[in-house]
Amino acid sequence: MSMKLHILGCYSATPRAQTRPSAQVLETGGHLFLIDCGEGTQMELRRYKLRFSKIDHIFISHLHGDHFFGLPGLVSTFRLLGREKPLHIHGPKGIKEAITLLLKLGDSWTQYPLLFNELTAREPQLLLEETGVAVSTLPLNHRIYTNGFLIRELPGERRLRPEAARRYGIDTAYFRKIKKGADGLASDGRLIPNAELTDPPTHPSSYAYCSDTAYKPELPAWLKDVDTLYHEATFLEKDAALAAKTGHSTAREAALIAREAGVQQLILGHYSSRYKDLQGFQAEAAAVFPAVELAEDGRVFSW
Amino acid sequence: MSMKLHILGCYSATPRAQTRPSAQVLETGGHLFLIDCGEGTQMELRRYKLRFSKIDHIFISHLHGDHFFGLPGLVSTFRLLGREKPLHIHGPKGIKEAITLLLKLGDSWTQYPLLFNELTAREPQLLLEETGVAVSTLPLNHRIYTNGFLIRELPGERRLRPEAARRYGIDTAYFRKIKKGADGLASDGRLIPNAELTDPPTHPSSYAYCSDTAYKPELPAWLKDVDTLYHEATFLEKDAALAAKTGHSTAREAALIAREAGVQQLILGHYSSRYKDLQGFQAEAAAVFPAVELAEDGRVFSW
Repeated sequence: MSMKLHILGCYSATPRAQTRPSAQVLETGGHLFLIDCGEGTQMELRRYKLRFSKIDHIFISHLHGDHFFGLPGLVSTFRLLGREKPLHIHGPKGIKEAITLLLKLGDSWTQYPLLFNELTAREPQLLLEETGVAVSTLPLNHRIYTNGFLIRELPGERRLRPEAARRYGIDTAYFRKIKKGADGLASDGRLIPNAELTDPPTHPSSYAYCSDTAYKPELPAWLKDVDTLYHEATFLEKDAALAAKTGHSTAREAALIAREAGVQQLILGHYSSRYKDLQGFQAEAAAVFPAVELAEDGRVFSW
Repeated sequence: MSMKLHILGCYSATPRAQTRPSAQVLETGGHLFLIDCGEGTQMELRRYKLRFSKIDHIFISHLHGDHFFGLPGLVSTFRLLGREKPLHIHGPKGIKEAITLLLKLGDSWTQYPLLFNELTAREPQLLLEETGVAVSTLPLNHRIYTNGFLIRELPGERRLRPEAARRYGIDTAYFRKIKKGADGLASDGRLIPNAELTDPPTHPSSYAYCSDTAYKPELPAWLKDVDTLYHEATFLEKDAALAAKTGHSTAREAALIAREAGVQQLILGHYSSRYKDLQGFQAEAAAVFPAVELAEDGRVFSW
């Protein structure tokens, strides 16, 4: 199975002429999940030709403006586009009051069901488990209540070897059960062990989004076997004091989390605008964890 | 005196990859007034290199998202930029609750004074009169409570003719009074009539912003002698029924207002995205009122 991550925006704090605040879309098994929704996200969705209509779940990490001030506009645009199916918004408690107040002031209620899942838990919590995928929270350490999100494809079925099934003359009526692990009945009455008829399921892909957060020692235990980790790196080590003060991480701290968790790939983002050049982030992280990539607005990652 | 109008966005409803919702900056006598603040306005301010720090007053016409969903982000950015001087926000009742709720949720109170002037009046109302300029409301007819804004430079002083003052040997100590209209005392004791010593003040410029509104017959009386009128033209006449239903105007209706008010120049904007080409707006309006221009994102008008 596979995932595709579209970075719509990966800069911290104030949007600028050329940089966008946090927002990204994860594609997995027919789902389009929007993660965070900074100001201008709907324009970026259009710019990269991502299908609005396929977004059914939006996950908001926390209620700082650079992570959710694009949400009221997107909710309104869904209304103007004639959306009918429900939209689920998962985010910190208070998000419902904010969005509904803005809609009320504009006398612009959605004609589609707008469903809020308000979060308060301090421990990881399952948000969603449907058609091949599960999403849970990763409580983070920031100045206000914040969650990261862990998205795991559910293990698929075993993969039938058609030539083996033919060789033993197995009736197609048994295929569904065999893909679920059952042994197969050959045409001569023998019971053929499942391992001879199938290959193991393909590797279920997984992704973790951790922004915004200070270095959080509990994270690696929650991220075991994750393929790709997006971890904020607002600062470099030389500004570690500023990172600590503002509840953010350095590139090195992000790499330490990635190494201890044993993820396949680390993506850095949420850069402070004080750095003119992003190469310092890559270098600092790579010294600890070599498989590191830099998010950039518009960049797409697949695994 | 003179005014300069920067169109940051002039399209209706949902922002798209290439078009921006309503926002504009009027420059007059050292002031930078921001009028409406659709999503993404702060990025456009940066794109056109307009000085954030000079904005002390923001005027919001109404609380539909395409006119104010950029405001929370701008208010937050002023905080991050270390603003200290007060920011005045003039807009419909409810705007204070909306902005303060969003700041509260993010635990992001401004360190600068954020002052709201909440509007409810149904008749024109003076909002501001300071250093050379006055701003008042133009109540409009839309689906929700909406105001346009009329910005007039105040008449300046009479302009001293230096060579005439010298010829009569008038002491410079009298110049201030002469510029205010007093006659001048010549060195030989004669009283010289003011008209011989001064020219009339330069023409004070004026600007009216009317968006969003259905055709409103009271407008021309309020717009007498206005130089430039920006009037919404969401639709063309062929969609007049839609304009009436949604509380908007056609290009022809905007031109009728301009003609009856006798303004110098009409600027159209707030186009519906249903029209691929804007020339139809110009043609339709010009048949009624020839001095018509089309707003476009990024266009600058001076008068």
